Amino acid sequence: MPTKATDVSQTLAGFIAGSRYEDIPEPVRHEARRSLLNFFATAFSGCRDPALDIALGALSEFGVPGDAAGDAVGDAVGDAVGDAVGDATVIGRAERVDPLSAAFLNAAAANVYDYDDTHLRTVIHPAAPVAPALLALSERRTVTGQQMIHALALGIETECRIGNAISPEHYNRGWHITATCGVFGAAMAVGKALGLDDRRLVWALGTASAQASGSVETLGFMAKSVGVGAAARGGLLAALLAERGFDGPDHPLEGVRGFLNLTGEAPRLAEVTEGLGTRWEALKNIHKPYPCGIVLNAVIDGCLELRASGATPVEAIASITLHGNPLLRQRADRPAVTTGREAQGSAQHAVAVTLLQGRAGLEQFTDAAVNDPAVLALRRRVKLVDDPSRAVPSVRLVVERKDGAVEEIVIEHARGTDQRPLTDGELEEKLRMLAASKAPDCTEVDRLIEAVWGLEKSADVSQLLPQARPLG
Amino acid sequence: MPTKATDVSQTLAGFIAGSRYEDIPEPVRHEARRSLLNFFATAFSGCRDPALDIALGALSEFGVPGDAAGDAVGDAVGDAVGDAVGDATVIGRAERVDPLSAAFLNAAAANVYDYDDTHLRTVIHPAAPVAPALLALSERRTVTGQQMIHALALGIETECRIGNAISPEHYNRGWHITATCGVFGAAMAVGKALGLDDRRLVWALGTASAQASGSVETLGFMAKSVGVGAAARGGLLAALLAERGFDGPDHPLEGVRGFLNLTGEAPRLAEVTEGLGTRWEALKNIHKPYPCGIVLNAVIDGCLELRASGATPVEAIASITLHGNPLLRQRADRPAVTTGREAQGSAQHAVAVTLLQGRAGLEQFTDAAVNDPAVLALRRRVKLVDDPSRAVPSVRLVVERKDGAVEEIVIEHARGTDQRPLTDGELEEKLRMLAASKAPDCTEVDRLIEAVWGLEKSADVSQLLPQARPLG
Repeated sequence: MPTKATDVSQTLAGFIAGSRYEDIPEPVRHEARRSLLNFFATAFSGCRDPALDIALGALSEFGVPGDAAGDAVGDAVGDAVGDAVGDATVIGRAERVDPLSAAFLNAAAANVYDYDDTHLRTVIHPAAPVAPALLALSERRTVTGQQMIHALALGIETECRIGNAISPEHYNRGWHITATCGVFGAAMAVGKALGLDDRRLVWALGTASAQASGSVETLGFMAKSVGVGAAARGGLLAALLAERGFDGPDHPLEGVRGFLNLTGEAPRLAEVTEGLGTRWEALKNIHKPYPCGIVLNAVIDGCLELRASGATPVEAIASITLHGNPLLRQRADRPAVTTGREAQGSAQHAVAVTLLQGRAGLEQFTDAAVNDPAVLALRRRVKLVDDPSRAVPSVRLVVERKDGAVEEIVIEHARGTDQRPLTDGELEEKLRMLAASKAPDCTEVDRLIEAVWGLEKSADVSQLLPQARPLG
Repeated sequence: MPTKATDVSQTLAGFIAGSRYEDIPEPVRHEARRSLLNFFATAFSGCRDPALDIALGALSEFGVPGDAAGDAVGDAVGDAVGDAVGDATVIGRAERVDPLSAAFLNAAAANVYDYDDTHLRTVIHPAAPVAPALLALSERRTVTGQQMIHALALGIETECRIGNAISPEHYNRGWHITATCGVFGAAMAVGKALGLDDRRLVWALGTASAQASGSVETLGFMAKSVGVGAAARGGLLAALLAERGFDGPDHPLEGVRGFLNLTGEAPRLAEVTEGLGTRWEALKNIHKPYPCGIVLNAVIDGCLELRASGATPVEAIASITLHGNPLLRQRADRPAVTTGREAQGSAQHAVAVTLLQGRAGLEQFTDAAVNDPAVLALRRRVKLVDDPSRAVPSVRLVVERKDGAVEEIVIEHARGTDQRPLTDGELEEKLRMLAASKAPDCTEVDRLIEAVWGLEKSADVSQLLPQARPLG
């Protein structure tokens, strides 16, 4: 029976409340584990970013006073950033905070480099808002490995389906969809782990809707991290409040002034509910090989191929034209970026740095890399042309040489897309590489990887977390 | 020289950074004090609401653990709601929390009953998101009375001007404008009190924009309180982060994907900047005599007049038709409310309960009052008719009697509007009444009132706060 337009929130909540672990197909469970592994990898990648240092400092100064709480937790912990105290894990760091702040900080860290998983249709990064909310929950309540996998899968399903109902107009208008939809994913994931009934899940959707925010205008700046961090924290809070009876409207998603109408245009409500339990969005979630917006992945693949072909040395290039889906130009036409952070969303920088340095890792998206004179010179030769016939993660590179010759590279499917997914081993390698690069004092990452793959057997997810921070 | 469209955030920030206390006209300062007094009154009114109990419980369980921090602060404090610990004041309550949570809870409390100050053109309640952010700041950093008045006036100016640029379409679409614009007011107020320069104030606007949220769909439910609470907390956090160098976009308000374009339609950017420092929105901020939406104030005045006239006893009423500005119907046509909270926004309930009970105080907006059979019977006789020629806070009541006779009452200016403002004495009385009704163990309210009027001479605003909580 088709869902009535007025039933969307209730239908979604009813599905989540009634879902059993056995109902989740094994491939979906495996994708949840892969997303969690990739989440840890990306949380390591951002854990020492100045945005994290600053946020930890402010949250600590305005938390419970250090002299009241610090002694009991241990001075060594508090001293690193002043008065940071608590018992919840900040991935990759020694400081401990309260669980709500941990959800905020870990989500912020995971999205610093746009290196996290990506649901291609909506361009949501599903794990960043959801996984840290669940991990933070596990530091207060017992969450088993099966509960974690189950809740993570349902949270991803929630945010991606809500995003589907308003894509692409929602992001096009300027909403940072990972944050705006992520708060609902976090709320439903935590709500499921808490065992909330459908009425309370609808309340949690309402309280999540009162916090849904995040703007594309902030991308490339630290301010972005606050949107994604607040989505994780806000979703966790929404579920915790609902558990205690904090009520909300009956139609927080589909109501006349509900989230979908507020931030969408003629939302397709059926996208939220049709095929729940049989069609899984988690299976359309992919993992990125490069630390920048998904629209740039095919571009980087193309540059690496161009370099590997050896036919056109960099000095010989007169111009490089990227023929891509219009989204490429809309999101990544940023010829004049000045910081590494902004450069994650710049096609011009990505092309120049990849051609010059032959790789696209974190070191290619630093302030220094952006201001390298050779990169600056080459990026001026990059042009973008819309080709609506191209899929998002594909591109045609046309390189015009100074001698007038033309070389062309076509990437139909970027590495990391569902046609060319990263293997489990490549994901492990990504985690090891990022942890080694950004959190070298976290020496237990192999045990962490093992624990994620074996999550189904864990009686207490919080036991993963010591492996995600420095020993001692 | 007119502001360039691309200069809005910078111009606003520059004005705030450059403003001196001497630049604030005395009437504006006085309105800031009145707003603060009314804020305390309304924070008392909501301080024991179940929404506050629940939020305190959840924030405490997920805060720094009680056994780590509780002993140092004192067990008596923590025990009231489990593990609530900290040193910042929750107005009207014994529990102490961290300052960010205090900002959240006090803002939520102040907006529970829609009893707070109102900027009529936008229907923003300006003090609720701004004042508690500043008070929370004062519990960590020294804020003088002059700084408090100055920052509060600039915060109110900020949120009302941003609201002006997108009203009425922003609220009409379904954005809860007190929350969505309030986060900017809180950020600029705290930023001013911290002495941030214009660049950092622009960053704070950006981080505020990443958190701006709140939906009209949640009105009448506890979920609403989270929107307003998060605006205060989010604005405080935005300023604290900016102080430490947390960056944001250059055009968070006016950018193509900035706040004004995201949530408005063809925003009138000049409304934000024109006449800054010479025209003050704080002077258009009014205080309400009744605990419900401003659109209902004239309706209640009319019902009280009708009752006072004695010409039409309740038993004789066949129907009551409210001819009001279309906003009255859009916001308050709620014939079937079931809770006191929803009833704050119901014209039908307001008419019935006021006619039957002869007053409109907090007791008239309880669950019991809403479900009183006599109220239920009378509210069914209330009809709403649009009259676009009427100003928002005016109404024409047409009462048809069972005998066919008609009585008509016209309220041109509701009590509490700028034509009929509450006096300073009436505001004091409102505070005393609400504290006595909801926080009878707060016995120092007379000293609190005196301290607010004498704020200009205070060297440390935090010294007000012991008068706003139970002794002990």
